Amino acid sequence: MQLCGFHVGIDQPFFLIAGPCVIESEQLAIDTAGQLKELTTRLGIPFIFKSSYDKANRSSTASFRGLGIDEGLRILQKVKDEIGVPVLTDVHEDTPLAEVASVVDVMQTPAFLVRQTNFIQNVCRQGLPVNIKKGQFQAPWDMDQVVAKAREVGNEQIMICDRGTSFGYNTLISDMRGLASMRRTGCPVVFDATHSVQQPGGQGSTSGGQREFVPVLARAAIAAGVAGIFMETHPDPANAKSDGPNMWPLDQLEPVLAVLKALDDVVKQHGFVEQGLMG
Amino acid sequence: MQLCGFHVGIDQPFFLIAGPCVIESEQLAIDTAGQLKELTTRLGIPFIFKSSYDKANRSSTASFRGLGIDEGLRILQKVKDEIGVPVLTDVHEDTPLAEVASVVDVMQTPAFLVRQTNFIQNVCRQGLPVNIKKGQFQAPWDMDQVVAKAREVGNEQIMICDRGTSFGYNTLISDMRGLASMRRTGCPVVFDATHSVQQPGGQGSTSGGQREFVPVLARAAIAAGVAGIFMETHPDPANAKSDGPNMWPLDQLEPVLAVLKALDDVVKQHGFVEQGLMG
Amino acid sequence: MQLCGFHVGIDQPFFLIAGPCVIESEQLAIDTAGQLKELTTRLGIPFIFKSSYDKANRSSTASFRGLGIDEGLRILQKVKDEIGVPVLTDVHEDTPLAEVASVVDVMQTPAFLVRQTNFIQNVCRQGLPVNIKKGQFQAPWDMDQVVAKAREVGNEQIMICDRGTSFGYNTLISDMRGLASMRRTGCPVVFDATHSVQQPGGQGSTSGGQREFVPVLARAAIAAGVAGIFMETHPDPANAKSDGPNMWPLDQLEPVLAVLKALDDVVKQHGFVEQGLMG
Amino acid sequence: MQLCGFHVGIDQPFFLIAGPCVIESEQLAIDTAGQLKELTTRLGIPFIFKSSYDKANRSSTASFRGLGIDEGLRILQKVKDEIGVPVLTDVHEDTPLAEVASVVDVMQTPAFLVRQTNFIQNVCRQGLPVNIKKGQFQAPWDMDQVVAKAREVGNEQIMICDRGTSFGYNTLISDMRGLASMRRTGCPVVFDATHSVQQPGGQGSTSGGQREFVPVLARAAIAAGVAGIFMETHPDPANAKSDGPNMWPLDQLEPVLAVLKALDDVVKQHGFVEQGLMG
Repeated sequence: MQLCGFHVGIDQPFFLIAGPCVIESEQLAIDTAGQLKELTTRLGIPFIFKSSYDKANRSSTASFRGLGIDEGLRILQKVKDEIGVPVLTDVHEDTPLAEVASVVDVMQTPAFLVRQTNFIQNVCRQGLPVNIKKGQFQAPWDMDQVVAKAREVGNEQIMICDRGTSFGYNTLISDMRGLASMRRTGCPVVFDATHSVQQPGGQGSTSGGQREFVPVLARAAIAAGVAGIFMETHPDPANAKSDGPNMWPLDQLEPVLAVLKALDDVVKQHGFVEQGLMG
Repeated sequence: MQLCGFHVGIDQPFFLIAGPCVIESEQLAIDTAGQLKELTTRLGIPFIFKSSYDKANRSSTASFRGLGIDEGLRILQKVKDEIGVPVLTDVHEDTPLAEVASVVDVMQTPAFLVRQTNFIQNVCRQGLPVNIKKGQFQAPWDMDQVVAKAREVGNEQIMICDRGTSFGYNTLISDMRGLASMRRTGCPVVFDATHSVQQPGGQGSTSGGQREFVPVLARAAIAAGVAGIFMETHPDPANAKSDGPNMWPLDQLEPVLAVLKALDDVVKQHGFVEQGLMG
Repeated sequence: MQLCGFHVGIDQPFFLIAGPCVIESEQLAIDTAGQLKELTTRLGIPFIFKSSYDKANRSSTASFRGLGIDEGLRILQKVKDEIGVPVLTDVHEDTPLAEVASVVDVMQTPAFLVRQTNFIQNVCRQGLPVNIKKGQFQAPWDMDQVVAKAREVGNEQIMICDRGTSFGYNTLISDMRGLASMRRTGCPVVFDATHSVQQPGGQGSTSGGQREFVPVLARAAIAAGVAGIFMETHPDPANAKSDGPNMWPLDQLEPVLAVLKALDDVVKQHGFVEQGLMG
Repeated sequence: MQLCGFHVGIDQPFFLIAGPCVIESEQLAIDTAGQLKELTTRLGIPFIFKSSYDKANRSSTASFRGLGIDEGLRILQKVKDEIGVPVLTDVHEDTPLAEVASVVDVMQTPAFLVRQTNFIQNVCRQGLPVNIKKGQFQAPWDMDQVVAKAREVGNEQIMICDRGTSFGYNTLISDMRGLASMRRTGCPVVFDATHSVQQPGGQGSTSGGQREFVPVLARAAIAAGVAGIFMETHPDPANAKSDGPNMWPLDQLEPVLAVLKALDDVVKQHGFVEQGLMG
């Protein structure tokens, strides 16, 4: 499938969706996008900038929610214009979808909302590529029905994204079988390497995270076989306004991407022997 | 707390929220409400009629979604007028809340939407009692933050409801510890005995269910200690338009309620020895 | 089925297996057995004293393992002689089974060893009643094969016991459906209310526990429908040499047993409506 | 660490433990060992032949258990002598350990028995390298205590092996974080790619399996970073006498090993950036 001008799929080099969890300021967005563009260009990795303007499902209302839609879209437009990269943001039930669609290149739906039929179909009706996150409460094959709903409204640019599955309380687990399993939908499969290490609700009024496992899971997902990697990154995660415990430090991103690129090349050269057994 | 004219809480007799999953027709709603009123009056169980007019998160768009809001609210009003019981329905992100609030006595929020801050607060702002379902992806104590958000807008009539927790793929499990744990919020705790036996996505394009475990889990929850029981029931579950595999047959409801009533009396007479250890 | 002179089963009053996790001293065993006999006689609950002489699977070798087999069996014999109650102990792969069988009334096999065919069959060959614990890694219906192995050697006095199922890391969960499900084997089903609240490995070199949930789960299990309850108790759990965090204080046992007895009477008078649906 | 004459560890090329689940016949063992030796030599992968002579924990007693210890050890000795490869077998509580240790090069302990202190220490006392499988009911960090017990008796040649963790009923899941986590013990970490796709008890009296995910999980584990891979293989899995549904076909092994070798080279050249964050 074509995505923002590059080919994506299980037989194409992996692409990266990355950026700070939330648009904390214009400066942060521009700087991060610029550094990410420079790094991914050097490594030959197609890149989409991701950032949110409103965190609608924070654990607590005392947490930072973002700069709001007007300021958020203005900054995303600026990132496109000044840095020259495609941008992605996530939308919610009360988002003015057409307004967001007029700015961004890719829309993303949150895991919690994956079963809301009207919402998923309304987002897909905007005509942009959509990255649909699998619910933490869903099996990989449950995405078949979600993809069917998305396609029903005529959108063929659907990506599906795994960000972990509920495992006991306040813990997620990433099932690498699920990545292969979701490839059966025909949609590009994306692995979200930073939300997968979240510990939802694990710190009372905020969520915890195990940042050290981000590169481990990202490598494993690439080797399992994916079309893309999603990764939130920040120049100073310890002081980030959202998801600090699970974002990856921007200044340590290069060695992670370098090994992912090398692994992706190897695994896609060899092909996926399991395809013959999966029907 | 006062709810629809009766006292509810861990030191009060349990109340019942029951009805068919979806309003299939006026006749079904009226008949079921009538029979449930007769039965619960005889057994001395406070009763609230539940039915949905729109199933917004069906597995597949080929499934029946309901009669729509106008017809749905008309029928719920008729149930109130003719049968004389309070009514509850569930609302969603795109529900006209004030319109629904002008008819029903209790509003209910779906498990999948428990983390949507705006939505939960908007529902709670209507000034009616609200039954908030715990997400299948949440720990019991994660409801502390949800209750805090609900109370923030001034609503003190909050109930919280357990309808099962993700356990592997396509399976839910009911943690009886969680019912005791959620009592710490001070909110009446309700156990949903029919969605707890659902097998979400377990039959491909629809969800399965293990109806035979409904009375087992309902008895266990009553003995663990709850303020209320939620139970979907239908005169002919095999031909129901939604959730058939997990609804309980209306004509077999009496023995279930009778034992629940007797167990509830016993457990509440004895008191809850764990309270002293839970701080 | 007959067990130590009383009738046990889903249509009989529940029996209690209780005692301190490990035989710390003769005095502790005699005193605890005496108090438990007095209490259960008063409440009309058939009682079997349980204690271990060797904890073969402690998390760490630095933990107390027990007084050894000779001293252990001498004390169990003394409990029988002086207090006049039947006794149960758990056996392991290297236990001299005949020696233990010459003293105790009931043998118990550990959850971790449930899949060891030779072991299970050797224990069952001793001709005593056996309480087989379900593995934490097993589904309730996996016990069908275990029971088949046990019966293959001619032992018809098999009880099966649920002590929790793995749920994420370092946590167990008790599925009340499983108790009903395991009744299909025809064996008396026992619920272990204290190991079910263990947090295995949860404190590094020892296991943690959530004692406050013992009465919650015990009540729920009785209401779900069981033949017996297993519960470890100690006069001073904070200073116990094993399983302190999950044992129930002996001096707070009476209110727990009193409500269990009352609930058990109620649920067994009403019968189990689910039986008709379970085939 | 040195193992059978080669260096193993996170900074060494991965080694392979492979063979048919059970020694069905001398011919099968010799043929399979020969083909595996030829293949691994060509690919430059250090190789240890694995096969069992007694399956002590089959789901049902009607299943094939093996040829017994005398015939089993004779055949393993013949594999060593004729094929010239080191051999591994698994031992159980009632295994004559010294007898087995006199033939094999590596001993392996089953996941179910990981918490049996005497057993683990007795095996480790034989002085051979030991591959200890993590219990399906254990967290990765629970292996710290197991390794401590093993080292207590003076054995420093301990490997630890992940073969999946309980996830709901009749399903295992492989947590790639766990492989990195277990590296903290300092022991070589092995990933068992075939038992990880087992569905224990999933077919009533036998276990099921999802063979198609073997290469997916093996690639993911290599990319996460391991010292070795364990994989059961058979020339004709459909007619194998044990574990057929999860063994990998011998004639399709080459492409799997080839991609594992290439991925392992890449990931170990790049190093493990997470090490700096894991303390």
